[in-house]
Amino acid sequence: MPGNDRYAILFEPVQIGPVTAKNRFYQVPHCNGLGHLRPRAEAAMRGMKAAGGWAVVSTQETEIHPSSDLSPYPEQRIWDASDIPALRRMTEAVHEHGALAAIQLVHNGHHARNHLSRAPILGVRDMIGVASYPRQARAMDKADIRAFRGWHRAAALRAREAGFDIVYAYAAHNMTILQHFLSARMNDRTDEYGGSLENRARLLREVLEETREAVGDTCAVALRFAVDEMMGADGMQAHEEGRAVVEMLAGLPDLWDVNVSGWENDSVTSRFEPQDGYQIPYIEFVKQVTTRPVVATGRLNSPDLMVSLVRRGIVDFIGAARPSIADPFLPEKIRTGRIDEIRECIGCNVCVSCDSLTVPIRCTQNPTMGEEWRRGWHPERIAPADEPRAVLVIGGGPAGLECAMQLARRGYEVTLAEAESELGGRALKESRLHGLAAWRRVVDHRLFDLRQRANVRLFTDSRLTAADVAETGIADVFLATGAAWRRDGRGRSAMTPLDLDPALPVFTPDDVLDGRLPAPGPVMIFDDELGYLGGVLAEHLAVAGQRVIFVTSAAMVSPYTELTLEQSRVQRALIEAGVEIVTGHRLVSTSGQGALLHCVHSGRERHMACGAVLMVTERLRDVTLHEELQTMAGRFRTLTLIGDAAAPGLIADAVWDGHRAAREFDAGDGGGSFFRRELVLGEG
Amino acid sequence: MPGNDRYAILFEPVQIGPVTAKNRFYQVPHCNGLGHLRPRAEAAMRGMKAAGGWAVVSTQETEIHPSSDLSPYPEQRIWDASDIPALRRMTEAVHEHGALAAIQLVHNGHHARNHLSRAPILGVRDMIGVASYPRQARAMDKADIRAFRGWHRAAALRAREAGFDIVYAYAAHNMTILQHFLSARMNDRTDEYGGSLENRARLLREVLEETREAVGDTCAVALRFAVDEMMGADGMQAHEEGRAVVEMLAGLPDLWDVNVSGWENDSVTSRFEPQDGYQIPYIEFVKQVTTRPVVATGRLNSPDLMVSLVRRGIVDFIGAARPSIADPFLPEKIRTGRIDEIRECIGCNVCVSCDSLTVPIRCTQNPTMGEEWRRGWHPERIAPADEPRAVLVIGGGPAGLECAMQLARRGYEVTLAEAESELGGRALKESRLHGLAAWRRVVDHRLFDLRQRANVRLFTDSRLTAADVAETGIADVFLATGAAWRRDGRGRSAMTPLDLDPALPVFTPDDVLDGRLPAPGPVMIFDDELGYLGGVLAEHLAVAGQRVIFVTSAAMVSPYTELTLEQSRVQRALIEAGVEIVTGHRLVSTSGQGALLHCVHSGRERHMACGAVLMVTERLRDVTLHEELQTMAGRFRTLTLIGDAAAPGLIADAVWDGHRAAREFDAGDGGGSFFRRELVLGEG
Repeated sequence: MPGNDRYAILFEPVQIGPVTAKNRFYQVPHCNGLGHLRPRAEAAMRGMKAAGGWAVVSTQETEIHPSSDLSPYPEQRIWDASDIPALRRMTEAVHEHGALAAIQLVHNGHHARNHLSRAPILGVRDMIGVASYPRQARAMDKADIRAFRGWHRAAALRAREAGFDIVYAYAAHNMTILQHFLSARMNDRTDEYGGSLENRARLLREVLEETREAVGDTCAVALRFAVDEMMGADGMQAHEEGRAVVEMLAGLPDLWDVNVSGWENDSVTSRFEPQDGYQIPYIEFVKQVTTRPVVATGRLNSPDLMVSLVRRGIVDFIGAARPSIADPFLPEKIRTGRIDEIRECIGCNVCVSCDSLTVPIRCTQNPTMGEEWRRGWHPERIAPADEPRAVLVIGGGPAGLECAMQLARRGYEVTLAEAESELGGRALKESRLHGLAAWRRVVDHRLFDLRQRANVRLFTDSRLTAADVAETGIADVFLATGAAWRRDGRGRSAMTPLDLDPALPVFTPDDVLDGRLPAPGPVMIFDDELGYLGGVLAEHLAVAGQRVIFVTSAAMVSPYTELTLEQSRVQRALIEAGVEIVTGHRLVSTSGQGALLHCVHSGRERHMACGAVLMVTERLRDVTLHEELQTMAGRFRTLTLIGDAAAPGLIADAVWDGHRAAREFDAGDGGGSFFRRELVLGEG
Repeated sequence: MPGNDRYAILFEPVQIGPVTAKNRFYQVPHCNGLGHLRPRAEAAMRGMKAAGGWAVVSTQETEIHPSSDLSPYPEQRIWDASDIPALRRMTEAVHEHGALAAIQLVHNGHHARNHLSRAPILGVRDMIGVASYPRQARAMDKADIRAFRGWHRAAALRAREAGFDIVYAYAAHNMTILQHFLSARMNDRTDEYGGSLENRARLLREVLEETREAVGDTCAVALRFAVDEMMGADGMQAHEEGRAVVEMLAGLPDLWDVNVSGWENDSVTSRFEPQDGYQIPYIEFVKQVTTRPVVATGRLNSPDLMVSLVRRGIVDFIGAARPSIADPFLPEKIRTGRIDEIRECIGCNVCVSCDSLTVPIRCTQNPTMGEEWRRGWHPERIAPADEPRAVLVIGGGPAGLECAMQLARRGYEVTLAEAESELGGRALKESRLHGLAAWRRVVDHRLFDLRQRANVRLFTDSRLTAADVAETGIADVFLATGAAWRRDGRGRSAMTPLDLDPALPVFTPDDVLDGRLPAPGPVMIFDDELGYLGGVLAEHLAVAGQRVIFVTSAAMVSPYTELTLEQSRVQRALIEAGVEIVTGHRLVSTSGQGALLHCVHSGRERHMACGAVLMVTERLRDVTLHEELQTMAGRFRTLTLIGDAAAPGLIADAVWDGHRAAREFDAGDGGGSFFRRELVLGEG
């Protein structure tokens, strides 16, 4: 234990039933967009967590039967024995580093869609399914319940065969049949599985007992349980039935993994819950009620908070999903006294969005996430330069900072020039908007690293001309010059600039980010981009006292934020801040008095008075310098556009692109093969 | 050619460049939710079309490069040589039946999302991408254009290696870079690829020439081209630039596959375009301009229309996507004089929805669609009964009709008892609603078949009691007793019945379907189901003169219809019919004067006056008879709930479930394995 006795308690082994975790770091089950579609990538990604020091690494929820088919979402599957080889890859990758592998078995009940399997949807009662689709679940009868218990038991046996050490029953996130049976709101059964809490808990008890009976001699049996649904008396509450369930089943599982429900509450973004450790008030009772080890989560990034939670007897394990994504080596960094090197989760839920998009997980802070197998990227290692040339990075936003940091880690002599007075670019500026303070961690982490390196020179207030660049004599130049928001209204809804009357002031997000605010009087935000920024700006201005009209071409405010589980919170925040919301309309033209809108469906006109328009439509890449440098033939060895200047996207995209450029620089790969693929037929 | 000289012209061979199609039936490229994720299923599904007599069978759009990554949508991929084995399966399955295999190469430009590949998005110009996601495309520079041409050429060569006979360039559906370059609306380039039509067509010309140069000696080169974007002067128009493009490139491709754009216009539902052959007015000029063979589509189901189109010199090939899904054996049925047996497409776009859901294709009319490989289902063949018992089917809706028909085809002695005076159930009733007339084909096809069979007895006005059923002496009973809409408001938004004042009349969809209509005065439709029916009923009542307020808990009208490409048309139709639309609200309670709504985001209250409420929330299965029969121990060998009575869903689900039950009856399969799967690792 070099260095840090202060954190030694975090590295004590903890027994979980028949198995022992080597320390207190526990990656709870979380989805990653890999799962059964990409088993090699899944194994490598989970294995990287184990390499980073997590004592327990879980795979994501694992469907036990075709009647719990979550397609198209690529979770895990253990429908039958044919799934075992893929799962075994994951357990082997985890075991290789001395960690325990956990599997969260699930039947999703009416939350399953069964679009692939076309199986009947099973529910605690007859009820409509999820996701705006007109199919319903049928209430499970006695035969269905018997069958479900059999599927769960068989899946536990297959899980053991695949090498798992910990087998979960799952009653959380408002997504599982075991939780639905517990729920007084949903369970209106009149048989022995409905009515009293004891009856509603009967199925969970049976499943726990049968799992233990099947595999409990060698595997720990864990229960993931949502103690509170955060809906007051309409749902489970921690101080009422939540506590009663833990009391009732206290010693039955070998481990309690406790959280809040639904998923949007468990994985709330920092925008709506800035406090790390926000779940503690709900779960702190649990260890008073059970002697079994307890794991809990809530964006636990701080080692001091972790120690405090263990010392105060609130948890035995530091649970993490998002912090383990942002930094798979978090435990190792604490163990070796490198606290400052931890890449802290910013709570943006870009990771979550990938599950919804059914594509491999990504992370704003950790660009290697999801790339472990297919691109061979390691979060802590990067190939050293063959020849440590001098390189110039122009622009100190997220792409420039990441690119510079990785080039420096490779050993290049890095010069970074930023035009403005502070490093950080849009990540820094956006972090000053209402709710986005944690996003500053993107800048802080990289600046902390860069400032310690002898081979890095950082310059601010340094807007370079082409001549300046040539004068440096540096032959390899990375341009992270960013993008600026359009002022002419062009975007999704308008292929050509809008008819804008100069009498009505027009603002862009860049104006607001730079402190140029509309005068008092209603400002109309026209959000045609449909990302997060339009909604953030609306709330930011409204909270500051501005009257705001929010017009969007979409059916809802900030539809992108559905992917980050935020959308309803965003819309509520705007309503509560007094923002007038007009959905389904596009801006067509302005006059001195206001704006003309068209309904996107019918084309019907609507006039609205306002004092200014704030256009959130589309961005223009700043490539002027790049174009000038391109004309200076022979002066440069490489000129590489990165980040928003290459293609505007999320901050996560910019960081990733800067990282990629640094990895690929001088790597000798012609770019012919983007990445390794996992194909059903015809492996390449 | 047995029987039908009248249709002989449809069976003439037609030359396409270096290859010859054996007849005029041409399955144009269409997606199917199988693609690169499910190559064995893709091959079997396309092979079935070939078996059914289609002379050309195309696979779906095939991405030529990781920068055209449509993930999560499982189209086809030909990124590199590793994709060839999967594609070869498809061509072999097609060739086995003497058909030609076609491949539609695509680069989707800014329509691609590249969520999987994370490649830069390439566009004709800098512009925001699609799908409410804040990423933008960058304008392709000269190097990008050269690279794209190289990718297309290399993909054509790989396609030939995989066995394809026809290789497409694709400029349609508002989804491809070749169309985006053509578009005066999008293409604002100042280089030789922008400006005049000749310049905008340059890239398309180059690609066609290079494809021909690469593979034209053995493969035909086809062009799929949208002659009209159906947006007036804002887009391509058939009588202007659409015609000019065909004139300019007339002889360059070996075949013209022409349609209208975007996809929602090409594949418009029968609800909004009841006329089969609706694209003819747009494409009829094409054969006047080119000597190359022409294929066109537009729900061409009628053999007489087909003959007329060929005779009038409008097309050389009868193109089909949806009609070939509803009936893969359509050509064979015409050839062998079995016109009446054709399962006509109803234009519901359930097939399309599967692409959006990224799951295997299904079809309301053809329950075997997508099941060819994984369940071994054949649209025209079913295993004969080992023992031709008597069976009773109770309920003549879509599930009952399909189940009865398939049981009859297997040779069972089928009795079908329907409680009401007409056979058809909900399919018949819903077909009487505004816009859904074509849905009646679900009933007509099955009744036509059943009425010809000697082993079928059909009874209407026969509501059976348990005693009646027992009295029949039939031991095997299928219950297709359907479901009824709830009147108490329970559903997604309300776990318990609503607080409804008896003074305000409450209606359900069943009331309207049975002719019980609200009195004059505004009726509030509360759509908490979010399928198609709420919107259909609103339009139906409004068109009939009723004042309608449409309240939905969703952000838009009928969100399910996004999957069928109808949503914006639905919302426009309601607006134009004068319906007052309130989104994002749920019904909480009623009084004699109206309803109390809550905002789904903020909980804020809103009172609205109305004279009645029509609840579109959730359905209750009618299982009373089933439960009674279950108590009569030993009287029945099998009691099988099917269709909405088993689990309420779409008509497509009911048909499929009736089909499945008929297939599985007496089949001796314990149900342990639902279907064969295609796994990346660990084939079972």
